[in-house]
Amino acid sequence: MKAEKLTLSGGQAVGRDDVSIKITHCGICYGDVLSTRNKHGDSKYPVVPGHEIAGIVKEVGTNVHRFKVGDHVGVGTYVNSCRDCEFCNKKLEVHCAKGPVYTFNRIDTDGTITKGGYSDYIVVHERQVLYIMYCYTIPDSYPLASAAPLLCAGITVYAPMMRHKMNQAGKSLGVIGLGGLGHMAVKFGKAFGLNVTVFSTSISKKEEALSILGADKFVVSSDQEEMEALIKSLDFIIDTASGEHPLDPYISILKTTGVLVVVCAPSELKFNPLGLLTEMRTITGSGVGGTKDIQEMLNFCAAHKIYPQIEVVPIQYANEALERLLKKDVKYRFVIDIENSLK
Amino acid sequence: MKAEKLTLSGGQAVGRDDVSIKITHCGICYGDVLSTRNKHGDSKYPVVPGHEIAGIVKEVGTNVHRFKVGDHVGVGTYVNSCRDCEFCNKKLEVHCAKGPVYTFNRIDTDGTITKGGYSDYIVVHERQVLYIMYCYTIPDSYPLASAAPLLCAGITVYAPMMRHKMNQAGKSLGVIGLGGLGHMAVKFGKAFGLNVTVFSTSISKKEEALSILGADKFVVSSDQEEMEALIKSLDFIIDTASGEHPLDPYISILKTTGVLVVVCAPSELKFNPLGLLTEMRTITGSGVGGTKDIQEMLNFCAAHKIYPQIEVVPIQYANEALERLLKKDVKYRFVIDIENSLK
Repeated sequence: MKAEKLTLSGGQAVGRDDVSIKITHCGICYGDVLSTRNKHGDSKYPVVPGHEIAGIVKEVGTNVHRFKVGDHVGVGTYVNSCRDCEFCNKKLEVHCAKGPVYTFNRIDTDGTITKGGYSDYIVVHERQVLYIMYCYTIPDSYPLASAAPLLCAGITVYAPMMRHKMNQAGKSLGVIGLGGLGHMAVKFGKAFGLNVTVFSTSISKKEEALSILGADKFVVSSDQEEMEALIKSLDFIIDTASGEHPLDPYISILKTTGVLVVVCAPSELKFNPLGLLTEMRTITGSGVGGTKDIQEMLNFCAAHKIYPQIEVVPIQYANEALERLLKKDVKYRFVIDIENSLK
Repeated sequence: MKAEKLTLSGGQAVGRDDVSIKITHCGICYGDVLSTRNKHGDSKYPVVPGHEIAGIVKEVGTNVHRFKVGDHVGVGTYVNSCRDCEFCNKKLEVHCAKGPVYTFNRIDTDGTITKGGYSDYIVVHERQVLYIMYCYTIPDSYPLASAAPLLCAGITVYAPMMRHKMNQAGKSLGVIGLGGLGHMAVKFGKAFGLNVTVFSTSISKKEEALSILGADKFVVSSDQEEMEALIKSLDFIIDTASGEHPLDPYISILKTTGVLVVVCAPSELKFNPLGLLTEMRTITGSGVGGTKDIQEMLNFCAAHKIYPQIEVVPIQYANEALERLLKKDVKYRFVIDIENSLK
């Protein structure tokens, strides 16, 4: 039995259903800031953060048939789930009834504490039934460094955009906030053929939003006149702004039956319910996505040559990068070059 | 041309597409409180409130074929709309792109000010194209007094329940607040075969909620232990509470992908977005419903013998009833017996 033991992420042995991955790159996400600073009071030291992982398969268990040595693969924000509930069976494992096992700082089913991508190896499970897996094929043509941020920032905006049919060409999308998530929402929006308006607190992002990211319009959210000119004009809004911000001006910008998706988490949001009920508008939430969505997104990005804007840094720069992330001083995602700097 | 003139609500002549109705009953809605007290500063005196109107057809225009003299009919919160926009064409006239013309205190397309159901007659339009009409057939078996509150309180909860598939037997529904709207949500919920939990600030409503309205469970919303026992247990919640109230405890009670529909309008609601995004939950709004929904609801209520709980009062009692409504001292809707008291 020992040779067949399922040792999931954080362990050393490769079980019969496991995929062992040599990590080449890991994106730096705000979640890493939270756990390294024990913001939720639940950090289990030593914390190894990182849940935007890209790498190369080095070993597979005897039961694994979907991956082979040398394949480029990614690992996202979770590495296990019950594999038996309504949501696991719909490949929405992030909503697993027993809770997904997050990629770091969580206790896995075997009792070990999960450890993330600021590391040189990770072992994850491929579930044979329903082909659920906790790692994903990164198409060969797609750079591993660029793939890393897709596993959290990318899927967090892609999944709700697909779920709420924001991929219908010709429709209009608003993106609140232009960070790791927001800049990907703009890129997906343009790839879907949407008319994209970026809302930001700072005019300084205008040039990049329009010329580099390809947004159609840029609005400084404090400009009341410009905001009012947009009333009832947008089909969708995706809200990636992490700071406190008023919701009513954005709700009023939605058309009748429009949908605002919240993907970022200030501690509180307020709204006047009249804005929803007079126009059948909706506020909904979404967090990352299921395994099926993640693989689809990776394929879509490769097919449409959609790449996040990244700043590649060595592992030795991780602490400084986390500090800069706290100050929002990054365009738009740090990616650690694990392969070349973690020896 | 004069004989063919379209005179809509508030006028005297019956145009070729008009239906003239002798009002027998009119429900008293919180909207009547707002306009009679000029709460929005837009009251056009003399205000004739009332938008839960039931009565009998007394005359029809030459083009009207769906109604005949003697028919029992209802009129709801709006009596006109552009009849040409996306929403009018979907029979969602309450969301008319040019705005619906509300039944009282609004300027109709002919420049007259609409006047509501605290009156003995009303004239409304039947639109031939698409059979859109601004009055509805009340089945003969259904008491006119009981029909009145359906035209606002009833449809306000029925429409979102249908839109969000809350009519799937076996699912679970929470109803926040037990007034004119809330008690109808309980009745519809039970008719749909749902497991219904009522949330109220006051234990005093427990007995009635369970034994008279037929709810399955009653929870005092301040009882933290009972609220926590319900976490992730309900498919839907319909929020009819007009006062300020916290939203997070209710959001946490929704299952993954659960939907909370706001149909009442305190000035502000607050929520922690984490409650939405971790579980793909949704907050959405709804205001009354389209003409198609209203007719369907009336037919459904007649078929399933669903009647609002009403207190029938004479027109002379209207001011006192409005005062009692302000104090929430009514179970659960006042209906004015226009026919027998307004001579």
